Amino acid sequence: MQTCQATIKETIASMTFDETCALVREDMEKVEEVLSRSFQSDALLIPTITSYLNGAGGKRLRPMLLVLSSKISGYSNGNRHILNSCIVELIHAATLLHDDVVDEAHIRRGNPSANRKWGNEASVLVGDFLFSKSFLLLASEENSKITKSVSAASKELAEGEVLGLATKGNFDISEDEYMEIIYKKTASLISVSCRIGAIVGNASQEKERALADFGLKVGIAFQLVDDVLDYTGNQKSFGKTIGLDFQKKKMTLPLINLFQKAPAKEKKKIEELVLSNGDMSCRLKTLVDMMKHYDSINYALDKARNYVAEAKKELVVFDESPSLTAILSLADYVVSRDI
Amino acid sequence: MQTCQATIKETIASMTFDETCALVREDMEKVEEVLSRSFQSDALLIPTITSYLNGAGGKRLRPMLLVLSSKISGYSNGNRHILNSCIVELIHAATLLHDDVVDEAHIRRGNPSANRKWGNEASVLVGDFLFSKSFLLLASEENSKITKSVSAASKELAEGEVLGLATKGNFDISEDEYMEIIYKKTASLISVSCRIGAIVGNASQEKERALADFGLKVGIAFQLVDDVLDYTGNQKSFGKTIGLDFQKKKMTLPLINLFQKAPAKEKKKIEELVLSNGDMSCRLKTLVDMMKHYDSINYALDKARNYVAEAKKELVVFDESPSLTAILSLADYVVSRDI
Repeated sequence: MQTCQATIKETIASMTFDETCALVREDMEKVEEVLSRSFQSDALLIPTITSYLNGAGGKRLRPMLLVLSSKISGYSNGNRHILNSCIVELIHAATLLHDDVVDEAHIRRGNPSANRKWGNEASVLVGDFLFSKSFLLLASEENSKITKSVSAASKELAEGEVLGLATKGNFDISEDEYMEIIYKKTASLISVSCRIGAIVGNASQEKERALADFGLKVGIAFQLVDDVLDYTGNQKSFGKTIGLDFQKKKMTLPLINLFQKAPAKEKKKIEELVLSNGDMSCRLKTLVDMMKHYDSINYALDKARNYVAEAKKELVVFDESPSLTAILSLADYVVSRDI
Repeated sequence: MQTCQATIKETIASMTFDETCALVREDMEKVEEVLSRSFQSDALLIPTITSYLNGAGGKRLRPMLLVLSSKISGYSNGNRHILNSCIVELIHAATLLHDDVVDEAHIRRGNPSANRKWGNEASVLVGDFLFSKSFLLLASEENSKITKSVSAASKELAEGEVLGLATKGNFDISEDEYMEIIYKKTASLISVSCRIGAIVGNASQEKERALADFGLKVGIAFQLVDDVLDYTGNQKSFGKTIGLDFQKKKMTLPLINLFQKAPAKEKKKIEELVLSNGDMSCRLKTLVDMMKHYDSINYALDKARNYVAEAKKELVVFDESPSLTAILSLADYVVSRDI
């Protein structure tokens, strides 16, 4: 029965990204309004940096998932999905600012990163402001279930980032450890976004769990693809510096898988390519060629596709609707963007 | 009547810092236990850095104020004062880690700062963890008044820090603008600490407001003294790099006051001393001599002492008790430490 439903759900998941955006346009405009208001402050560097970030665009994946999750859960009257979308997006924006400091990134969303333009100090402090602002909105929500979920996800996110730091140049890291890191640093907040949609929509426990699991799997797939794009992406459409993980010696799945598959002699070469300081583009090209040879890029992408397929199955408990088609399509979009 | 009571309160405020510590020792040990548990994480860099910070000691001013505020408000059964003390201390610890990144500080609490030992990345991310952990504890409290107060203070703190950034090397900043910054970046969290004591103690609105105002004024005095110590302190007892504000061209009251009082010709010299890149200790000594000559150090200290005197008057609404004596003595300690 469940398998049959899942098949149906897969056939109806055929909305383009633009069609999905069109479906939630009105809500997303409200999200942008509340976000803009959240960026206001007498400390002028805050609106300056946040509108710069905002102007550069962003997919608003988390708000879109939250809004659609609330809709498939039956939420139709009120603006709680808008406010909560802003809560998760503010946390995400804060982590982007801090990530760029941590990664010494120079490009974000196709433009010079904020830390490049205004310095690390400003990025750290404006990030803290966004975190605090998010918790202030959360406090105004007065929903202890949501408050607990968001703060737990925010803690996991920070832990995931710290765990990620410790993997730099560490070839002992296993695929399981990597999966734990991406679950924490990316999937937990995306999972919470979907779960909040269920909570504001007053969905059953079963549906709430289904949406949380859907978000978790989509989140894992999202990060897997992000990590592949760091090796194979096009800088313009990816909007971030390519090769940054490589440059920072971060162990992500394409590299972990390559290292596992390569024979002893080649393992040594891989370590040298990652750890040496020679010409970066040359080292990166050699490494990507090896990843292709050992099918490590496809290995990571297949894993992402499997997670998306599993994610979509979670939503069999929901009735068909344009919003359901849209959220399933969003899951597909996560693995089809710019590979 | 109020003046008379205030005079009585000033006479009874005569506990030494050690006696105050002894009075709250049991509670503070519980605070340390909960803090230690809060520092645990599978991401090993988190317990490593936090226990390093913890080992270096700290005055725990905010927890002590919160605990004593709860006691004078009549709170005696339960551990809510302990949990809430940890909430504010975790936010404080997070800002210390981030501040050191922002200020490129090399010494904190008399030891090499965490960013010096583990890099800026770790300090940013572990700071984020502590922030999140604080909000997770806050969520478990399920008290919307406390949640709103803490998140509002946390937002003000970040705004104050950002405003402070924008004053670097800006001789146009007025004393009022400076006071606004220190109110936001320091006094708001100290005020909230005292206010939470009143909330957990179920104090009247009047007493809650009195404790919030007490904390606000003590917080302002604390920062005024901190800013003076940056010019005149002893590195060992101050526990921080001396001359850091000067080095970062931060406008604090001793400098603002000096610049206001100095005649036009000397204003130029002051600007040169602050903005030039010559030998730092020589420039700093000349500037401190000028501050002494124009009585700017005393001006800032007198202002701090006045704030403490005003703060103590707020507590006339509370009955006499050892805890009241202790909290009034703590206020005095703020302006008497290592000047």
